[in-house]
Amino acid sequence: DAPVRAATCRAAVLHSVDDLRVEEDPRALPDEPLEGWVRIRMNAVGICGSDVHYLKRGRIGQFVVTAPMVIGHEGAGTVAAVGRGVTTLKLGDRVALEPGVPCCSHPAALKGRYNLAPISFFATPPHHGCLAEYVDHPAAWCFLLPEGVSLEEGAMCEPLSVGVHACRRAGVQPGMRVAVMGAGPIGLVTLLAAKAFGADQVVVTDLKPSNLELATQMGADATVQMSVLQPPAQVAAALTVAAGAPSGVDAVIDCAGFESTMQAALLACASGGRVVLVGMGQEEMRLPLAAAAQREVDILGSFRYANTYPLCLSLLASGRVKVEPLITHRFGFSAEGVAEGFKVAHLCEPGTVKVMFNL
Amino acid sequence: DAPVRAATCRAAVLHSVDDLRVEEDPRALPDEPLEGWVRIRMNAVGICGSDVHYLKRGRIGQFVVTAPMVIGHEGAGTVAAVGRGVTTLKLGDRVALEPGVPCCSHPAALKGRYNLAPISFFATPPHHGCLAEYVDHPAAWCFLLPEGVSLEEGAMCEPLSVGVHACRRAGVQPGMRVAVMGAGPIGLVTLLAAKAFGADQVVVTDLKPSNLELATQMGADATVQMSVLQPPAQVAAALTVAAGAPSGVDAVIDCAGFESTMQAALLACASGGRVVLVGMGQEEMRLPLAAAAQREVDILGSFRYANTYPLCLSLLASGRVKVEPLITHRFGFSAEGVAEGFKVAHLCEPGTVKVMFNL
Amino acid sequence: DAPVRAATCRAAVLHSVDDLRVEEDPRALPDEPLEGWVRIRMNAVGICGSDVHYLKRGRIGQFVVTAPMVIGHEGAGTVAAVGRGVTTLKLGDRVALEPGVPCCSHPAALKGRYNLAPISFFATPPHHGCLAEYVDHPAAWCFLLPEGVSLEEGAMCEPLSVGVHACRRAGVQPGMRVAVMGAGPIGLVTLLAAKAFGADQVVVTDLKPSNLELATQMGADATVQMSVLQPPAQVAAALTVAAGAPSGVDAVIDCAGFESTMQAALLACASGGRVVLVGMGQEEMRLPLAAAAQREVDILGSFRYANTYPLCLSLLASGRVKVEPLITHRFGFSAEGVAEGFKVAHLCEPGTVKVMFNL
Amino acid sequence: DAPVRAATCRAAVLHSVDDLRVEEDPRALPDEPLEGWVRIRMNAVGICGSDVHYLKRGRIGQFVVTAPMVIGHEGAGTVAAVGRGVTTLKLGDRVALEPGVPCCSHPAALKGRYNLAPISFFATPPHHGCLAEYVDHPAAWCFLLPEGVSLEEGAMCEPLSVGVHACRRAGVQPGMRVAVMGAGPIGLVTLLAAKAFGADQVVVTDLKPSNLELATQMGADATVQMSVLQPPAQVAAALTVAAGAPSGVDAVIDCAGFESTMQAALLACASGGRVVLVGMGQEEMRLPLAAAAQREVDILGSFRYANTYPLCLSLLASGRVKVEPLITHRFGFSAEGVAEGFKVAHLCEPGTVKVMFNL
Ligand SMILES: NC(=O)c1ccc[n+]([C@@H]2O[C@H](COP(=O)([O-])OP(=O)(O)OC[C@H]3O[C@@H](n4cnc5c(N)ncnc54)[C@H](O)[C@@H]3O)[C@@H](O)[C@H]2O)c1
Ligand SMILES: NC(=O)c1ccc[n+]([C@@H]2O[C@H](COP(=O)([O-])OP(=O)(O)OC[C@H]3O[C@@H](n4cnc5c(N)ncnc54)[C@H](O)[C@@H]3O)[C@@H](O)[C@H]2O)c1
Ligand SMILES: NC(=O)c1ccc[n+]([C@@H]2O[C@H](COP(=O)([O-])OP(=O)(O)OC[C@H]3O[C@@H](n4cnc5c(N)ncnc54)[C@H](O)[C@@H]3O)[C@@H](O)[C@H]2O)c1
Ligand SMILES: NC(=O)c1ccc[n+]([C@@H]2O[C@H](COP(=O)([O-])OP(=O)(O)OC[C@H]3O[C@@H](n4cnc5c(N)ncnc54)[C@H](O)[C@@H]3O)[C@@H](O)[C@H]2O)c1
Ligand SMILES: [Zn+2]
Ligand SMILES: [Zn+2]
Ligand SMILES: [Zn+2]
Ligand SMILES: [Zn+2]
Repeated sequence: DAPVRAATCRAAVLHSVDDLRVEEDPRALPDEPLEGWVRIRMNAVGICGSDVHYLKRGRIGQFVVTAPMVIGHEGAGTVAAVGRGVTTLKLGDRVALEPGVPCCSHPAALKGRYNLAPISFFATPPHHGCLAEYVDHPAAWCFLLPEGVSLEEGAMCEPLSVGVHACRRAGVQPGMRVAVMGAGPIGLVTLLAAKAFGADQVVVTDLKPSNLELATQMGADATVQMSVLQPPAQVAAALTVAAGAPSGVDAVIDCAGFESTMQAALLACASGGRVVLVGMGQEEMRLPLAAAAQREVDILGSFRYANTYPLCLSLLASGRVKVEPLITHRFGFSAEGVAEGFKVAHLCEPGTVKVMFNL
Repeated sequence: DAPVRAATCRAAVLHSVDDLRVEEDPRALPDEPLEGWVRIRMNAVGICGSDVHYLKRGRIGQFVVTAPMVIGHEGAGTVAAVGRGVTTLKLGDRVALEPGVPCCSHPAALKGRYNLAPISFFATPPHHGCLAEYVDHPAAWCFLLPEGVSLEEGAMCEPLSVGVHACRRAGVQPGMRVAVMGAGPIGLVTLLAAKAFGADQVVVTDLKPSNLELATQMGADATVQMSVLQPPAQVAAALTVAAGAPSGVDAVIDCAGFESTMQAALLACASGGRVVLVGMGQEEMRLPLAAAAQREVDILGSFRYANTYPLCLSLLASGRVKVEPLITHRFGFSAEGVAEGFKVAHLCEPGTVKVMFNL
Repeated sequence: DAPVRAATCRAAVLHSVDDLRVEEDPRALPDEPLEGWVRIRMNAVGICGSDVHYLKRGRIGQFVVTAPMVIGHEGAGTVAAVGRGVTTLKLGDRVALEPGVPCCSHPAALKGRYNLAPISFFATPPHHGCLAEYVDHPAAWCFLLPEGVSLEEGAMCEPLSVGVHACRRAGVQPGMRVAVMGAGPIGLVTLLAAKAFGADQVVVTDLKPSNLELATQMGADATVQMSVLQPPAQVAAALTVAAGAPSGVDAVIDCAGFESTMQAALLACASGGRVVLVGMGQEEMRLPLAAAAQREVDILGSFRYANTYPLCLSLLASGRVKVEPLITHRFGFSAEGVAEGFKVAHLCEPGTVKVMFNL
Repeated sequence: DAPVRAATCRAAVLHSVDDLRVEEDPRALPDEPLEGWVRIRMNAVGICGSDVHYLKRGRIGQFVVTAPMVIGHEGAGTVAAVGRGVTTLKLGDRVALEPGVPCCSHPAALKGRYNLAPISFFATPPHHGCLAEYVDHPAAWCFLLPEGVSLEEGAMCEPLSVGVHACRRAGVQPGMRVAVMGAGPIGLVTLLAAKAFGADQVVVTDLKPSNLELATQMGADATVQMSVLQPPAQVAAALTVAAGAPSGVDAVIDCAGFESTMQAALLACASGGRVVLVGMGQEEMRLPLAAAAQREVDILGSFRYANTYPLCLSLLASGRVKVEPLITHRFGFSAEGVAEGFKVAHLCEPGTVKVMFNL
């Protein structure tokens, strides 16, 4: 019965490279959410590498910021208004927002791979994001937080989903020894997911000791520090030794995505294993593919995720996955807070993993 | 009751590069086949690219001919003697020989992927091959030819198996549009297998018009002639047009295996599709992997085959697959015949596909 | 620009048991189709066992006809009007209508199994059917008929879809020997699908010789006539002999669904094989499950279908599947035609398979 | 260099019903193990339900004890002699013995399902078992115990394997809620495996409160005590409530195997879920199969296991699975010890799970 929309409604709006402003939301929210939609008072929104990328470059691949765009896609909040026909949510419910709403009748979606269908995704031009006081979203893409799961954890479902999807693509299960290349936020959630999927061993590699320390704290069975110029065969050897897998690990999930990491991945992977490419470090790479193919080492892509939110919430609720240590910095939703938060995320000094806004 | 071993027993023995002799078999066949083994009077043996490769280069990768080696691995023949304990075969049975006998207790074999286990494979050093008058082989790896299947067809089960395995890896089934890159013997059997697996459309590409003509005769729904310097995007576009698949084909099976074919393959493949690498044209290749990964276009290796012989025989017996048109040249098992056969296989002029020896 | 709706619009309306009338359609079609929908001038509608069941019993399980309901769910027609936002279809396009429109955001649908999601299905109370002059339907569920595919064939995509889905559940592929129990319309389309999926052998069994003759004409490799009182082990033995599969067939698809057929199915199936239950002949059955489980013979349900229409149309367009012989009777869309058509379908005398209305 | 065979070699030999004697092993061990085999000094052997069954009934199904048979199939021991050609094991190595050695060239084995191939299995007539001082076994079926894994845990790999295989058949993974019916030894190891495979919730049901208490101690998320006469729908309702799965659990693994448990299982299982039948409580059962099939609730058998030992050892070594609490009784390998051990196992009073012999 209370008015569901504040007189003013602020959002973090990206105008152009390095021009991010906290100002009135360019979206004109309707008086009520659409049928089947809810209005969310955002409470926790994390910054992702892609957000920083848009801020610093104004584009990612073919997606270009050509008009002011609300930024942010990792969010959770509280139901502030309920559209007609919504029966699954009510005022005050705490929810995590899955940021991409696919075209449901696209063949890929009908076959269960909606991440490959045309999708309207927060903060991917021309779609606005969720670092804003209020966001309208389809109820079916808002997932009720179980008791004990915090709003920040709700926001963390987004990156965690990337790790979960990568593990599904890799077929991680008990009996498998897994290597994760890259220990940035995505590598770390992939480590968490791989342990939750029951991997026997998860070995993590990165260039930076600080990230590897964090990996160890988060449950990595071993870590391998590599350097940029190290021969891939050497990295591969170090990985398999660390994993106790003399004939190769069963899966490698590359969350860095460089030629050097992929070369090492192919060599470190056992015959019949899978190398999953998550990281987008490099567009083209030169790879020893014939030798890999003769061992039926497969290379699988992993793009975003599908059907992960309920699982992420269950993993968090049960404590099988703990994402809080990843949230290394917190800021409020003021002009200064947003500026400072993005600065920290951009600098990404040792010890920085995830920057979170509390709105 | 007849003596199962001729006084002399000839074989085609490779001594070193370009030195292939028809002479007494270097193997000392025991008086009787081992327990569980049978002795085969070989009747039909095909020449494969790898045989020519050993003749001309003396090695394939790490496999080096360091001692005289009987050549040939695509063979069929007649049971001439039966070892103790063999109940599945009897004298006079016509059989196709699966050339690789894996280590059965290797984990890969126990999981159903025996092609990835250590294997003793005909004519892969240090193992002798089957272009010989008599060969001993485990009964379990000799498959009874159904009535109506010729000995030559039995020999053709070997290359056909490569195509069948590739189609299994690609998951070919009705509803799929498939591109086959390369129309050599392997590309052509892959085409045959893809049709038998129910593909909606199979489009074949090659550099040589003669091979594409044969592909059309063998059931290709369309062919695309490409040239070496053509940009991959152009090849990909031509393939998808020819396949009537504007958003990409569902699978590409690359039976050439060059950087250029794989680049085209990744571009021609629909989101969520599979590119299977069979050909070994090039060891390393530079590929646009990030874009492929973002569309979850997966790259799968395909190495030899497992569990294909019974299926191949069934496909041949029922007429669903016809391999006879692939046998373009036939020779007898004399010094001249062997020399001439390998010469034809090596020159590989337009119109040459499979050279077969009748022993 | 022409008016898209005739002054009167007739439909076959089921009022109660044995009371089916051709009269003004109870649906009030809007002036224009909804956004994303199209209006179809129906041209071909087939009668299915369930239609007859509603006519004769007024219910199927929990689905009860409590208000007048337009009957029919196997239909094809011509686009007569196009709603806003529809880009895939235009006036005059000939289409097959997939009769069930699922709730797209249900977890089952998001995972690619939309047949298990809540669904609004033609002629399943409380939803009206498509035996009517005009029907509005979402454009995404109307599939353009390829050139050469007739409207009747378009209508036949519905039952064919049941067979395709059953074959997918059974994992039918080359190398498999398959038994189909029951040679009614569903058994026969399953036979057609199994051949298209590349099965080595498809053996069909039924009580009625006339149905088995048709099965043979449609490509069954063998048929087995069983009688109701025959011991299941005898039926199973006859099936495996007919299939040339001494250690059991690889899959059984039971399109009858009785205790006796399922008992025979479990016995006829090889270790590690699948028995797919499509038929709904009996609700409860007594089965020798322990013995089946010890051979890992699995029992899989098969309910309707998902993602089958494009495949069915491709199978029909290429001639890999021919459904015309199944259409044994044709009637016009008059009161007499409808009455007569349902009478024929209900009597189901030898030689009757599919009754089709031409509107 | 030490003599590998004691002058006398005792074994627990079953002569006929209720006639089990500790006496000289009827097997004449050769002086040395065969090529590729090792001789094991058995140290820990558990009693299984089937052992008791042979003792009390003299048969299981078609397997009848017609000659004196050494009993026992769950064993671990120490390598006492090494046959020619064995490179993976050496004197003194502690190993778990996988009791079934399949025919490796059987098609089922070649496809990775060796549990469905003809198999020579300890203590399944006519094969002797492993409750004996010395046993010869192929080296490939003897698995080195990792440091920290006890010989008793090695013996427990056998029943644990049954649970692991059942979970693989059920496809247990994170995101799934699982019900286990029956909390005997097999139900309890299935619970352990399901947790290790990452199930969100595992609910266990049994008739006996004592077993359910143990289930809770071993990590069950909830337990449901049922009674024999309770209507299946009531049991199913209790299970889904306990699992927090209002629309049904994702998998049910029935480790009891009665009509009543399977009826409840089918009702408790969500659409698209799996019911895995492990228990062999009853040969035939009357089931509401049509309703299950319409929801695509599949029934999968689970017979023994394949490729489980390395995983079991890894689960035990890492502490992800703890089987020690299951070993409720221990006896020495004397005539009295064996008699007493089998008596306890047979009586199976509350608190009895696994009886273990230390040799
Ligand atoms: N596929 C998807 O759906 C998806 C989703 C989110 C992010 N991504 C991509 O995943 C990647 C990782 O994301 P992030 O947020 O963790 O980025 P990040 O930059 O914070 O982390 C990358 C990590 O890889 C390490 N690294 C760089 N080069 C390396 C090398 N040669 N060897 C080992 N480690 C190396 C870096 O030190 C860093 O710790 C990015 O490329 C991002 O674009 C993909
Ligand atoms: N993976 C395996 O198990 C396996 C088994 C057998 C053969 N092979 C490999 O498969 C490949 C094919 O074998 P084959 O016997 O048919 O050899 P082949 O040389 O006779 O045929 C290759 C064909 O590819 C064509 N080709 C070459 N470059 C091309 C290009 N850029 N675009 C399109 N077509 C091109 C050639 O014209 C030729 O027709 C070989 O590399 C062989 O080593 C692999
Ligand atoms: N699962 C689904 O999605 C789905 C969809 C459509 C139809 N169905 C069901 O499939 C079944 C078949 O449909 P239909 O339209 O072909 O029905 P139908 O009644 O025309 O055909 C059934 C056939 O089974 C034969 N039959 C009966 N008892 C038999 C026995 N003991 N052994 C062998 N054959 C026997 C009959 O003679 C008949 O030919 C029906 O039960 C129907 O309800 C299921
Ligand atoms: N499939 C296989 O490969 C395999 C392997 C080993 C054992 N088994 C079978 O698994 C079953 C279990 O083995 P176990 O050693 O645990 O036997 P068990 O008899 O010790 O345990 C069975 C448990 O089920 C409970 N139970 C009985 N009726 C029940 C009911 N109606 N509802 C719920 N619980 C009920 C019993 O109280 C008991 O605790 C046996 O039938 C055995 O033959 C199968
Ligand atoms: Zn993100
Ligand atoms: Zn070859
Ligand atoms: Zn129908
Ligand atoms: Zn046991």
